[in-house]
Amino acid sequence: MNLLISISRNIYSLDNKGIEKARQRWDELICPKHTLGKLEDITLKLAGVYGNAKIEDNPKKCIIAFAGDHGVYAEGVSQQDQSITRMQFENFANGKSAVGVLAKHNHTDVVAVDLGIIGKKKIDGVLDYKIREGTDNIANGPAMSVDEAVKSIEYGIEVAERCIVDGYKIIGVGEMGICNTTPATAILSVISGRDPIDITDIGACLNLNFVKNKADTIRKAIEINNPNPTDGIEVLSKVGGFEIGGMVGVILGCSANRIPVVLDGFISYSAALLAYKINPKCKEYIIVSHLSNEKGSRLALELLDLEPMMDLNMRLGEGTGAALAMNIIDSAIYTYNHMGKKSEESIGKFL
Amino acid sequence: MNLLISISRNIYSLDNKGIEKARQRWDELICPKHTLGKLEDITLKLAGVYGNAKIEDNPKKCIIAFAGDHGVYAEGVSQQDQSITRMQFENFANGKSAVGVLAKHNHTDVVAVDLGIIGKKKIDGVLDYKIREGTDNIANGPAMSVDEAVKSIEYGIEVAERCIVDGYKIIGVGEMGICNTTPATAILSVISGRDPIDITDIGACLNLNFVKNKADTIRKAIEINNPNPTDGIEVLSKVGGFEIGGMVGVILGCSANRIPVVLDGFISYSAALLAYKINPKCKEYIIVSHLSNEKGSRLALELLDLEPMMDLNMRLGEGTGAALAMNIIDSAIYTYNHMGKKSEESIGKFL
Repeated sequence: MNLLISISRNIYSLDNKGIEKARQRWDELICPKHTLGKLEDITLKLAGVYGNAKIEDNPKKCIIAFAGDHGVYAEGVSQQDQSITRMQFENFANGKSAVGVLAKHNHTDVVAVDLGIIGKKKIDGVLDYKIREGTDNIANGPAMSVDEAVKSIEYGIEVAERCIVDGYKIIGVGEMGICNTTPATAILSVISGRDPIDITDIGACLNLNFVKNKADTIRKAIEINNPNPTDGIEVLSKVGGFEIGGMVGVILGCSANRIPVVLDGFISYSAALLAYKINPKCKEYIIVSHLSNEKGSRLALELLDLEPMMDLNMRLGEGTGAALAMNIIDSAIYTYNHMGKKSEESIGKFL
Repeated sequence: MNLLISISRNIYSLDNKGIEKARQRWDELICPKHTLGKLEDITLKLAGVYGNAKIEDNPKKCIIAFAGDHGVYAEGVSQQDQSITRMQFENFANGKSAVGVLAKHNHTDVVAVDLGIIGKKKIDGVLDYKIREGTDNIANGPAMSVDEAVKSIEYGIEVAERCIVDGYKIIGVGEMGICNTTPATAILSVISGRDPIDITDIGACLNLNFVKNKADTIRKAIEINNPNPTDGIEVLSKVGGFEIGGMVGVILGCSANRIPVVLDGFISYSAALLAYKINPKCKEYIIVSHLSNEKGSRLALELLDLEPMMDLNMRLGEGTGAALAMNIIDSAIYTYNHMGKKSEESIGKFL
C-alpha cells in the first residue's frame, strides 16, 4: 500500500511553462493557429508532462500489456476457451499477436506481464508478477481481496518504473484476458450508474444472444458486491481484474514519473476510470488512442472527458490501438520539430 | 475531353475474388473475426483494387497536391493574403510545409502541381500545369469555362498516371489555394441542396464575424451560376476551382488504373463528390483519412457514404490528413502480412 500511496501523492499538474513555450513554438511555425488540432494538443501535453518544450524525435516507446484470467468466465460470458489467455500471451512475447506486429511496425516495444494467468508454467519472455491463477467469480463475491487489488496496481507501478528506468519516454497499455470486457463493463456500470444492459456488448466475439446473460451477470455482480463507486480500489477488488489493476498502476506510475500514458480500448478506459478515482490528476497524463467499437466506449470517454484520435471499429484490445497511436504521436513531434518557421520562410510575414 | 471520357469509362468494380481471398487470409490469422475493424477493411479494399490478395509491405506512396488561386477572393472570404498560395506552395516543394514534414515522417513523397497560381514565375520542384492565373469570381459568373474544368481534371489524371508509371501504389490528394473552402462549400451546397449558412465555416482561419459574408457569397454564386447538381463537370466549372478539378482527376485516374486514392480534408471531399457524379464507381477506390474540423465535413462524408479513420480536429488541408493515414494503411498491410497464423500457433485450434 505504501508504494501506491506515495505514487498517488506525487502526481502533479502539468507544467504550464512547458505548455506555454510549446504554444509559442507553434506560433513560430508556418501554419495558421490551431489548424493542426490534436497534433498540436499532443505536443503541448508532452511539453507539460515533461516540463520541457524541447521534445526529442522518435522517443523510445513501449506498450505494457498485462494478462489475467477471470472467475466470472464460469457464468458463460464468453464463448472462447479460457486457455486462450495463456496461449495468446505467448504470442505477445514472441511478436506474433496483433499488438506484436502493430507495435513492431510502429517502432514500439511490447512488455508482457503475467498478473494472473491460469496455470503455473512460466511463459518465456513474459515478466512473472502472478498474483493468483485468475480472479474469483464476481457473480458470487469479490474478484479479489483489497490487498490483491493494491498489489495488482503496485505491480503495474513497478513495471512502469522499470520501463521508465530503461528509457521509455511514452508508455501505452494493453491487456489479454478472456472475458475481461465483463469486469470492465461492471466497472463502467458502477462508476456511471448506468444499468449493464445499456453498455454491455459482445467483447471480442460473443454471440449476440448471450449479451443479455452477460449484462445480467454484471448486474448480479454489482448487486452482490455493492462497491462504493467513489473508491477505485474497492471497485477494482470487487468487480475488476488483475490486468485492469496493472493498467491502473501504469497510469498512476507514469503520471507520478511525468511520462505520458497512451490508452488502448475499452478495458483500458475502465482502468483509467479507476485511476481517476484514486487521483484525478492522472487524467492530464493520458492520451486516448482510439474509440473502441464496444458499446460503452463513448460513455467511458465522456466520463473521462477525453477524446480519441482514431475511430477504426476495432474491438480486439491487446494494445493494438495504442500501437497505432504511437505513430500519430511521433508524427506530431516530428511536425513540431521540423516544420518551416515564419522567421525563415518568406511566407512568415503574412501569417 | 477524350482522356476524361476514356478514363471514366474504364472504372470497374473491385475484384471480388481478391476481396474474398483477403477475407480468407484474415480468417487464418490469430484474432477473432472483424475485431480489427477498418484495418481489415483497408486490406480487403486494397486486394479488391489491385485484384490481388498478395499486398506488398510498405508500398511506394505519394500525395499529389494541387495549387490554384480563386477570383472569389475579391469578396472578402479570407483574411489571408492571396500571395500565400504561391509562397506556401514553395514550401510544398522544399519540404518545409506541414504536409512536407508529415509526409516525410510517414514515408510518403509529395508531388506538387501548379494548376492556377497567380504569377508567371515557375516554382522550383513544382510541376507546371498552369491553366490560368486563378479562377474568375464565382460571385459574378462561372469560375472557369467547361473546357478549363475538363482540362483541370485531365491534368489531374495525367499527373496520377505519371505517378503510377513511377511505381506509386497508393496515392493521396492534397491542395493549396487561399480561400478554397469557399468553392468547396459551394460544391457541397449545390450537391446536398443545403443552404450555405448551414455548412459554411472558418476554413483555415477566417474570423467568425466573416462567416455570414462567406455564406452569402456562396449563396450568390450558386444563384447566379445555377449549376446542375447532377453534372460534376458543370458544378466544377461554375463554382469550383482548378485544384479541386485536379483532385477529381486523381480520384478518377487512380480508379481507372486500379490504384487506391486517399482523401485528405474538406476540399478533397468536395472533389470526391464531383468525381462521384462523373462515375460513382470511383467511390470504391477511396480511403478517407480524417474527419476535417470544417462544419460541412460530416454531411459531405454522409453523401459519399464513407467513414474517416481519424478525428484530429485538423483543418489545415495541404494533404496533412492523407499523410497521417498512410501509416495506418501501412500498419494494416503489415498486420495482414505478419500476424501469426492459426495453422502455426497452438492457439489456432481454439479460434
